[in-house]
Amino acid sequence: MARRSRDTRRDRGGSGLRQLPWRSIVNPYPHIEVLSADQVETIHLASMDLLENQGMRVLHDGARDLLARAGADVDNDSRMVRFDRGLVLEHVARAPAEFTLHARNPAKNFRLGGRHLAFTSVGGPAYCNDLDRGRRRGRFEDACDYLRLVQSLDIIHQEGGGAFEPIELPAETRHLDLYLSQIRLTDKNWQPVALGGERARDAINMARIALGFTAEELAAKPALFAIINTNSPRQLDVPMAEGLIEMASAGQAVCVTPFTLAGAMAPVTLAGTLAQQNAEALAGITLVQAVRPGAPAVYGAFTSNVDMRSGSPAFGTPEYAKAAQASGQLARRYSLPFRSSSVTSSNVVDAQSTYESAMSLWAAISGGANIIVHAAGWLESGLTASFEKLIVDAEMLQMMAEYLRPIEVTPETLALDAIAEAGPGGHFFGVSHTMSRYQSAFYEPFLSERRNFETWQEAGAEDAQVRANRIWKSLLKEYRQPPLDPAIDEELADYVNRRKAGAAAP
Amino acid sequence: MARRSRDTRRDRGGSGLRQLPWRSIVNPYPHIEVLSADQVETIHLASMDLLENQGMRVLHDGARDLLARAGADVDNDSRMVRFDRGLVLEHVARAPAEFTLHARNPAKNFRLGGRHLAFTSVGGPAYCNDLDRGRRRGRFEDACDYLRLVQSLDIIHQEGGGAFEPIELPAETRHLDLYLSQIRLTDKNWQPVALGGERARDAINMARIALGFTAEELAAKPALFAIINTNSPRQLDVPMAEGLIEMASAGQAVCVTPFTLAGAMAPVTLAGTLAQQNAEALAGITLVQAVRPGAPAVYGAFTSNVDMRSGSPAFGTPEYAKAAQASGQLARRYSLPFRSSSVTSSNVVDAQSTYESAMSLWAAISGGANIIVHAAGWLESGLTASFEKLIVDAEMLQMMAEYLRPIEVTPETLALDAIAEAGPGGHFFGVSHTMSRYQSAFYEPFLSERRNFETWQEAGAEDAQVRANRIWKSLLKEYRQPPLDPAIDEELADYVNRRKAGAAAP
Repeated sequence: MARRSRDTRRDRGGSGLRQLPWRSIVNPYPHIEVLSADQVETIHLASMDLLENQGMRVLHDGARDLLARAGADVDNDSRMVRFDRGLVLEHVARAPAEFTLHARNPAKNFRLGGRHLAFTSVGGPAYCNDLDRGRRRGRFEDACDYLRLVQSLDIIHQEGGGAFEPIELPAETRHLDLYLSQIRLTDKNWQPVALGGERARDAINMARIALGFTAEELAAKPALFAIINTNSPRQLDVPMAEGLIEMASAGQAVCVTPFTLAGAMAPVTLAGTLAQQNAEALAGITLVQAVRPGAPAVYGAFTSNVDMRSGSPAFGTPEYAKAAQASGQLARRYSLPFRSSSVTSSNVVDAQSTYESAMSLWAAISGGANIIVHAAGWLESGLTASFEKLIVDAEMLQMMAEYLRPIEVTPETLALDAIAEAGPGGHFFGVSHTMSRYQSAFYEPFLSERRNFETWQEAGAEDAQVRANRIWKSLLKEYRQPPLDPAIDEELADYVNRRKAGAAAP
Repeated sequence: MARRSRDTRRDRGGSGLRQLPWRSIVNPYPHIEVLSADQVETIHLASMDLLENQGMRVLHDGARDLLARAGADVDNDSRMVRFDRGLVLEHVARAPAEFTLHARNPAKNFRLGGRHLAFTSVGGPAYCNDLDRGRRRGRFEDACDYLRLVQSLDIIHQEGGGAFEPIELPAETRHLDLYLSQIRLTDKNWQPVALGGERARDAINMARIALGFTAEELAAKPALFAIINTNSPRQLDVPMAEGLIEMASAGQAVCVTPFTLAGAMAPVTLAGTLAQQNAEALAGITLVQAVRPGAPAVYGAFTSNVDMRSGSPAFGTPEYAKAAQASGQLARRYSLPFRSSSVTSSNVVDAQSTYESAMSLWAAISGGANIIVHAAGWLESGLTASFEKLIVDAEMLQMMAEYLRPIEVTPETLALDAIAEAGPGGHFFGVSHTMSRYQSAFYEPFLSERRNFETWQEAGAEDAQVRANRIWKSLLKEYRQPPLDPAIDEELADYVNRRKAGAAAP
């Protein structure tokens, strides 16, 4: 506690960065529903039809065995699995409607599901980009800097699984270096790399060590949230199936996210893409529940469309927005927590990058998203993690968090006396009602420029991208590593060393 | 009609600018309501209390007379008017819930109210700005170029009353030059300058000539939409009252928009600001109905907050978003059409400019706005009309229009056969369902960049602002003035010449 309050002072200290304090966010407003109840049901029925009659190709033998034992119709020659709708709905119903994800700093645990909302930093891009050094293959030290920034930004609830791939590290053990840094450099919940059984087991072992939990405790208090992508259309590959099975076995959260890009990996019509997404997501969640009934599972939606001129993926589009809100309706139909994302196709931190991110962010939040992955830092259709975009997005997320605090309507806030005191044609600057409240009355941005044009111009006419560059460098300079019990740190280092020396993941 | 189809071909022709065709927009989705029904009622009651006990200062003698005759309690010494709630509600109820605004091209008439949504270009700034010439006092020829662009952008339903002030023209007759250009250079509905009786009468006379209407026809088919700002708190000045009375007398639409900047011209708490906004808006609409029962009136909301560090107005803030949605609830409580805006405090067309505009645009639309004023071109808290921002905003408006087209759920769009045809792990590019639909399946942007980083970089690495600059210049080059009956043109020119020569506005 003492440490936390020091941290808070730091965040508001030398860098001049006044942040909203860490807090869990609740969305109190009605959702936008872009589908009628009948349409939701029609899409549901189409996806049941898909699962029963067309099925999924499941490339992992063990996964097919698990599904066969659960009652699915499995053909091992074609590796096709067909799912009876009763089987699917019965399994999906076992997933909890909400649960808590744990962090090594318990003050940074957060709830997932219901009316809760959490924000995750970007994960997985190949490149990084900043204004000084341009777009490049980032090195491990750059990735660690990104982790430090994610730790420093209080609006981010979850680290997104490594902002970009440091390819100078050996591919087989890179995830171990990442996990160790995620644990050391942040005290927040972090995403594992769920590609393959070993990487998943390493994450589970290291999370357990970091939290000082037994395997049973970790299952009761999940700390990992693994993104499992289907290989749309209608296929689950071996590494993803392994990751899913390991995570579910350990009682960790699995977020099944079909990669349904309409026009390429899914039909060119949104209804068809949603039916396919729904079928694939529920098939994955059925497998999760076949592995371990009651394991936390999240409905992941990532539906967007291709650009039909270039064939490139397009993000933050009107189609993306509609699909996100329709996906929220589908997830709620099954009482599953709903994952969405904040995305853009822009190659630079310009006006496009934020009108597309805002399109997806508003759609996701007003569509009832419980967790928004890639909510800070994503650029270039997910190929790049940007240092400046991280700061820009953090400001946008703070604005959304503040928007979600309902208007307080009380005799004091209705302020009829203050209105009388100001008088007709008067002003409220000096009124006592203003004086006692002005310091905390309104959201105070850390990036947005509100000085007039002349003052701003004299100060160098910096646009948002340039200001964001200054802010992340200042945050890095003031970063302090969150304390970690030396015994735990040593046990984690030992684990990584043993694994690098060739020991198998236990 | 032949002309219109030529126009459409032009828009998709040489400039490469593929726009959505002009269309009226309907918002089919549920509104976000940030207030409970009880809270709406509490704010309503507080505003009734304000009107009954504190009242409004009305500086115009004739307006006070009209209100006294309607039954309000008028004190001519203090110029204070107190309104009984029964009087207010009875008058407000006379305003139509929806109506049509007429344009000289009848294909560009649009509905206001209900589920309809219209977009207006920026109006009223002091400066203009473009990437080539920077921020400056714009000249009349620049303002005409802005009108040409507003005409060229099909997503804009209404011209916003002159994008900026051409101060080289004499202040007394500048509005005449503006009106003539609005009519000649566009065939859309345009906003008048409602500051003072003469300017209002000139607009009414010239609109009547442009449409070939008698005064009675104009009253039955309103063509003018006048923004009337109260001088918050609780004051209506002489020029605004004159404008209101002239417009209402002629049966033209009056949009009463209190300028309630929380912390400066309204309480520092949103509930109080909303109560004050509601009182001022309803007082203005009561006056409209006292002038001419049944005249179209619009509930205007512009509530934002000051930045408490600088005292500057701040736009596109979380407070702005909440207030916009609460205002929609209040407007609907009285069955009045609801006007909101798309706004930003940024001084440059950067990431901030669009995350703030998107914040206000999403809030307004999901809050049920019927008309969004300043929806294209606004910059710098309204001090500047930007040529590049006009293009960026037009793209954002097109995206919102496309988002508002509901997902079609039919056996054909559910595409189960196409999913079978693609097969597990396959792709949809060559599937017949895709081939027959891909050209029109998804929204096609005119500004957003979707090429990959390398291609984009080789092509010059232009950000959205630079691309917008190219687009508006290309639109200007291809602009063609919409035909106007020469007799009408001559009558308008005569009117302007006679008025400039000193004749009084009839």
